Amino acid sequence: MALIVQKYGGTSVANTERIRNVAARVARYHQAGDRVVVVVSAMSGVTDNLIKLAREIMPLPSEREMDMLLATGEQTTIALAAMALHALDIHAVSLTGAQAGIVTDGVHTKAKIQNISPKRIHELLNAGQVVIVAGFQGQTPEGQITTLGRGGSDLTAIALAAAIKADLCQIYTDVDGVYTADPRIVPDARKLDEISYDEMLELASLGAKVMQSRSVEFAKKFGVVFEVRSSLNDNPGTIVKEETRSMEDVVIRGVSVDKNQAKVTLVAVPDKPGVAARIFKSLGDATINVDMIVQNISHGAGTPATDLSFTVDKPELLKARKVIDALQAEVGFREVIADEQIAKLSIVGVGMKSHSGVAGKMFDVLAREGVNIGMISTSEIKISVVIKLAQAESAMRAIHAVFLGAATHCDPPHPRGSPDSKGRPRFRGRRGPRRRH
Amino acid sequence: MALIVQKYGGTSVANTERIRNVAARVARYHQAGDRVVVVVSAMSGVTDNLIKLAREIMPLPSEREMDMLLATGEQTTIALAAMALHALDIHAVSLTGAQAGIVTDGVHTKAKIQNISPKRIHELLNAGQVVIVAGFQGQTPEGQITTLGRGGSDLTAIALAAAIKADLCQIYTDVDGVYTADPRIVPDARKLDEISYDEMLELASLGAKVMQSRSVEFAKKFGVVFEVRSSLNDNPGTIVKEETRSMEDVVIRGVSVDKNQAKVTLVAVPDKPGVAARIFKSLGDATINVDMIVQNISHGAGTPATDLSFTVDKPELLKARKVIDALQAEVGFREVIADEQIAKLSIVGVGMKSHSGVAGKMFDVLAREGVNIGMISTSEIKISVVIKLAQAESAMRAIHAVFLGAATHCDPPHPRGSPDSKGRPRFRGRRGPRRRH
Repeated sequence: MALIVQKYGGTSVANTERIRNVAARVARYHQAGDRVVVVVSAMSGVTDNLIKLAREIMPLPSEREMDMLLATGEQTTIALAAMALHALDIHAVSLTGAQAGIVTDGVHTKAKIQNISPKRIHELLNAGQVVIVAGFQGQTPEGQITTLGRGGSDLTAIALAAAIKADLCQIYTDVDGVYTADPRIVPDARKLDEISYDEMLELASLGAKVMQSRSVEFAKKFGVVFEVRSSLNDNPGTIVKEETRSMEDVVIRGVSVDKNQAKVTLVAVPDKPGVAARIFKSLGDATINVDMIVQNISHGAGTPATDLSFTVDKPELLKARKVIDALQAEVGFREVIADEQIAKLSIVGVGMKSHSGVAGKMFDVLAREGVNIGMISTSEIKISVVIKLAQAESAMRAIHAVFLGAATHCDPPHPRGSPDSKGRPRFRGRRGPRRRH
Repeated sequence: MALIVQKYGGTSVANTERIRNVAARVARYHQAGDRVVVVVSAMSGVTDNLIKLAREIMPLPSEREMDMLLATGEQTTIALAAMALHALDIHAVSLTGAQAGIVTDGVHTKAKIQNISPKRIHELLNAGQVVIVAGFQGQTPEGQITTLGRGGSDLTAIALAAAIKADLCQIYTDVDGVYTADPRIVPDARKLDEISYDEMLELASLGAKVMQSRSVEFAKKFGVVFEVRSSLNDNPGTIVKEETRSMEDVVIRGVSVDKNQAKVTLVAVPDKPGVAARIFKSLGDATINVDMIVQNISHGAGTPATDLSFTVDKPELLKARKVIDALQAEVGFREVIADEQIAKLSIVGVGMKSHSGVAGKMFDVLAREGVNIGMISTSEIKISVVIKLAQAESAMRAIHAVFLGAATHCDPPHPRGSPDSKGRPRFRGRRGPRRRH
C-alpha cells in the first residue's frame, strides 16, 4: 500500500505496444493496492522530429516557442498511457505539467522547478485514479509553458516524489540499474544493489549515462530515495540514497572511463597571480567546459614558471586552442601541446574516505599494467587519472578486477537485509507489491 | 490599420513550407499596419495519425484523453507558425486555446465555447505582436483541456473575432470562396462575392462542405462578418454577412445537390395522431438523422391512411430499415419501400422570399428536362426536391443555367462598390493592405 512515483523514458514508451506494457506494469502495482503516479517522456523519436520541423523553419528558433512545440511530445504520451490503463479497466487520468501543479521559473528550454502544488494529484489519487503526469514540462506563474531541459523527466519524477512524499520513486530505463563498470568493456561488471547520491553524481559526471546530475542533486537535496531499474524485466534495480555505514565497508563502488576528453598543456606559464584566472575565465566566456585542471612545477630553469594542463571535451578542443592561442602574447607561456589520444579513468566510492591507501593501490595496479599516468585529480570519493587512450580498457579491467572482482570484492552479501523470496531486495523495510510472472 | 482574425486550415499548414507561406501572408498584413490574430488547425494528417495511435490502444478511447491527445496537433502548428514569423523578423507569440482565454463547457470532444477573455490577446497585440492561437481547443473553468469538434478551428476564429471586435475575419481554405454550384458538376458556376448567413447555413446543410453550420450560426448570432477565401492565391473570396437589400435583388444564390441520401416510404400508414411521433422518435433514439419528411394522402381506399416518406443518409439506411421494420406490427403500415437511387437538388436564396413563383419556375425547368419530382420540401429561402440520382447533374446544370447562368443572372455587377485596381472588392468600405506580387 505504498505511494509510488514511476518514471518511464522515451524508449519505454516508444510505440503503442510498449505503452501497453507500461500500463500492464502500472496496473500490477495499482491492483496490489499501491497508489501510483506515472511520469512519462515523449515517445522516442518524437522530440527529435519536432526539433527537425522547427529547424526547417529557422536554424535558431525562439526558446519560448521550442517549449510550446516540445511540450506536445509528453502530452501525447500521457493521453495514450491513460487510454492504455483504461483498456485494462484501471481508472487513470493524464495531467500536463501545468495541470500537475509544476511551477517553474521562466528560463525557457532549461527551466528550474520552483515549486509543486500537489493538491490535484492528491485529489485524484484519493479518488482511486492512477495519475499520469507529463515529464519534462511545467508552467511559469504567468502561465507560460516551459521545459526543464535534458533529463527533465527524471527531474519531474523526483520532484513529484518529494512533493507528494512518495514512499518509492522508480526510474525505469533500458538498463537493469547502475553497474560497477560498463559491461561492454568489463565483462565481470556487476549491477549494484545500492549506491549513494554522491557516488551516483560522480558516476554521472564521469560518463555513466544513466541519469543527469541535476536529478540526482535534486534527490540528494530533498532526500528522495529512488531506484533505477529496467522497464524490460522485473529484476530489482539499483537503489540510490544517502550513504550508510554499510556503504563505507565497500571501498569503491565503480570504475568508469571517459574517452571523450582531450588534454591541453600550456608549457612554461609565468608563475604569478591572476594567470590561471585569466586563462580559465577566457575559456568560460567561450562556453568551453573544462574538466580536470592540474598545475605542475616546471622543469625549466630561469624565471619561475609552471606547466598547466587541463582537459576539455574532444569536440571543443579546436575552439579551446583558438582561445589559448589568442592569449599567448598576453600571458606569455612558451607553447601549447594538445593530446586527443587520452582517456580519463576514475574510481568512485564513499568507502575510500575511510580507507587510506586507495590511491596508492590504484596507481600500483596501473604501474603493473605498464600504464603511465598523465594527470591525477582526486575528490573525497573519487580518483581520476588521465592515461593513454589505447590503454584505457585494459587498465579499466585490471582496476575492476582488483577492487571489484568476484574473488576480491568486499561488498557485504546483503547490505540491506535478506532479499525476499523473489530475490528482490527490501526497500526501506517495506516489501514491494507482489509481481506476476 | 484593421484588427484582423485569419484562420488557416490543415491543408494550408500541411508542412513547414506551407507554414512559411502562411507567415508571409500574415507578415504582409502586419507590415501594412494591421493587427493580426492568426488561428491555425493541426497540420493535415496529424490529427488522423493521433487518432490512429489512440485506436491502436483501444477502440473507444476516453473523450477526455482524446482531447488531451488531439490538442497537441494545433499546439504544434502554433509554435511552428510563430517561428516562421520570427524568421521574417515579425514579433509573434503562440497561445494555446487555454492561454488565449477560450473557456468552454466540459463536454469533451464537442465542447461549446462559454466565453472568451481576450485580455492577454489585447495586451500582446498592443505590444506589437502577431498573436497565433491554437484553433479547435479550449479549457474548462476547472482547467481541463477540451476540443470543439468538427469545424472547431473556424469556430475559434469567429468567436475570437466577436470577442476582440475584429474588423475582419478571414477563413482561409483551399477553395476560392463559395460558388453558385459545385464547379466540378456545373462548369458555369461562379464564385459569389457575398452571401447571407442564412443562405450559407442552407448551403452548409446541403452538402457544400466549405464550413460547418455551427460556425456560421455563431457568426450570425454575434454579427461577425467573415470572408471565405483561398490561402493559395490573393483572389478576393466570398463575404458572409447579414442579408442586405441588394442581396434580395438576386433571386437565388446557389444550387446544390446531395447524392448521399436515401428515401424511405411507409405505405398506408394509419392516419391517426401520434403515429409520426412514434416513428421519428424511434429513429431519433437510434441516432439516425432524418432530413426531409413528406406526408401524402394515401391513394388507397378504406380506413384513412397516408404515405409517409423521409430521407436519411445512405450509410444509415440499413439501420433505419431495422428500426422501421420493428415498428410495423405496432404502427400498422402496409409496407416499406427504400430507394437509394435518389438525389436531393436544392436552390437557395434570400431573394426568393420577395420573388413569388420561384418554385413554379424551378419545377417548370425540371419538367422540361423530363425530371420527375419525388419529394418537395421548402423553407423561406430554400426549395429542395428529391429526384432520380441519374438525372441529378443534368438537372442541376439546367437549373443553374436558368437561375444563375451568365446571360440571365441578375447579380448586380458590383454590389459592394467598385473593385480596387487589383480587382479586389472593397470590404466594409476599407481597403485591404497592399499585396506584394
